[in-house]
Amino acid sequence: MRTRADRARQVADLLRRQVLHGQFGDRPLPLEAALAREYGTTRNTVREALDLLRREGLIDRCPGVGTTVAGEKYPHGLHRLLGLAETLHEHGQVVNEVRSMTIIEAPAAVAGRLRIAEGEPVVYIERLRRLNGVPLSLDLTYIVTDVGEPLFDADLAHNDIFVLLERIAGQPLGSAELTLEAINADPHTAAVLGAPRGAALLMVERLAHLADGRPIDLEFIRFRGDRLTMRGHLSRQESP
Amino acid sequence: MRTRADRARQVADLLRRQVLHGQFGDRPLPLEAALAREYGTTRNTVREALDLLRREGLIDRCPGVGTTVAGEKYPHGLHRLLGLAETLHEHGQVVNEVRSMTIIEAPAAVAGRLRIAEGEPVVYIERLRRLNGVPLSLDLTYIVTDVGEPLFDADLAHNDIFVLLERIAGQPLGSAELTLEAINADPHTAAVLGAPRGAALLMVERLAHLADGRPIDLEFIRFRGDRLTMRGHLSRQESP
Repeated sequence: MRTRADRARQVADLLRRQVLHGQFGDRPLPLEAALAREYGTTRNTVREALDLLRREGLIDRCPGVGTTVAGEKYPHGLHRLLGLAETLHEHGQVVNEVRSMTIIEAPAAVAGRLRIAEGEPVVYIERLRRLNGVPLSLDLTYIVTDVGEPLFDADLAHNDIFVLLERIAGQPLGSAELTLEAINADPHTAAVLGAPRGAALLMVERLAHLADGRPIDLEFIRFRGDRLTMRGHLSRQESP
Repeated sequence: MRTRADRARQVADLLRRQVLHGQFGDRPLPLEAALAREYGTTRNTVREALDLLRREGLIDRCPGVGTTVAGEKYPHGLHRLLGLAETLHEHGQVVNEVRSMTIIEAPAAVAGRLRIAEGEPVVYIERLRRLNGVPLSLDLTYIVTDVGEPLFDADLAHNDIFVLLERIAGQPLGSAELTLEAINADPHTAAVLGAPRGAALLMVERLAHLADGRPIDLEFIRFRGDRLTMRGHLSRQESP
């Protein structure tokens, strides 16, 4: 009844967690025979599981060298509202390429979220964000003008917008509403992010409010699925 | 400098949020000319934006009929630990097809997370979960035996495991650790979920603890990206 593909998926999930949580460090993964013993399955199933993870870009397989972890996948916290550089500071340097920065008239969908009138000016910023030189995300951002306009004079390449906004507004950010999806990259986005066509992206829409409750920053973020995970905690009880 | 693809992406993101948040209801989307006016862009850009959303499976385009919302995309809460039927109860009936249910020896990756010895028995359950008959997710679950074995006599087709576990354990669940990724569906998973090959999946690993802190349930969940979003809140300040 259960096919080898079913068993391979089961093994792949457990190996994925070991890889993501750095259990193998810089060492190669155990040999197929050892993994087959550990997972109580056949070498063919292990080989198929490793192939699934290879196609996800998580591991490399090389004759003679064995199976190695392909590249780091960075954890983004889901427990606190943080900018990318803030959340990844242990992993390296985030540099932002500003692809566009302009003032536009707010379309209804933006105006409604930012609680301004349709057609009022908003600051629009488009950034390609790299960690240690490697493309991680493409961010489309709409900001209310009173805190957004000073950003034209700021160093957006080396700072999170969140940190700059707090400095400009003279108060911390409060909370954000978040929508998370998995989508396939369209060809143009894939090219910009240096990802394969159709690559799975983690798509985040995030509306951030100042501590006083005013919504000021609406972002649409496409994270490369093979480069980033989100990690958080959930409680069974509604928080008080 | 900015290409039409850049502008189309910008429009697509705003339209996506309007579609996801039910702004068009059952009505067709506005005509291309109206959208072009609203977004201050050309009809060609609007057409390209709509095409991006069509390829995501979010909208349908039909000559003579216009552009309509393709199928509901269901919101899964990220603010509270809930089973699928619990979180989607307003949207319809969740029915689970149990594809496998068995006792296995815990591999190291499972044993470590559930804080049991390697090789100790755990209950393994594989379920294909449907909402109103439509495949939504494929769930691979490992449960410690003392609370897991009574599940063999339970109605897993019509109940969330969370609710059953609380009944068996005689105490509520406490919290869960969560890892979220976007991955491309392998061909076999795509076939099981009835999704296109390579479709973007929201991959969730979730370790749930009882209120007393003991980890009892480790799950690997593949959600169809075109059928589900996750929604939550984040605070700037670390919660106390």
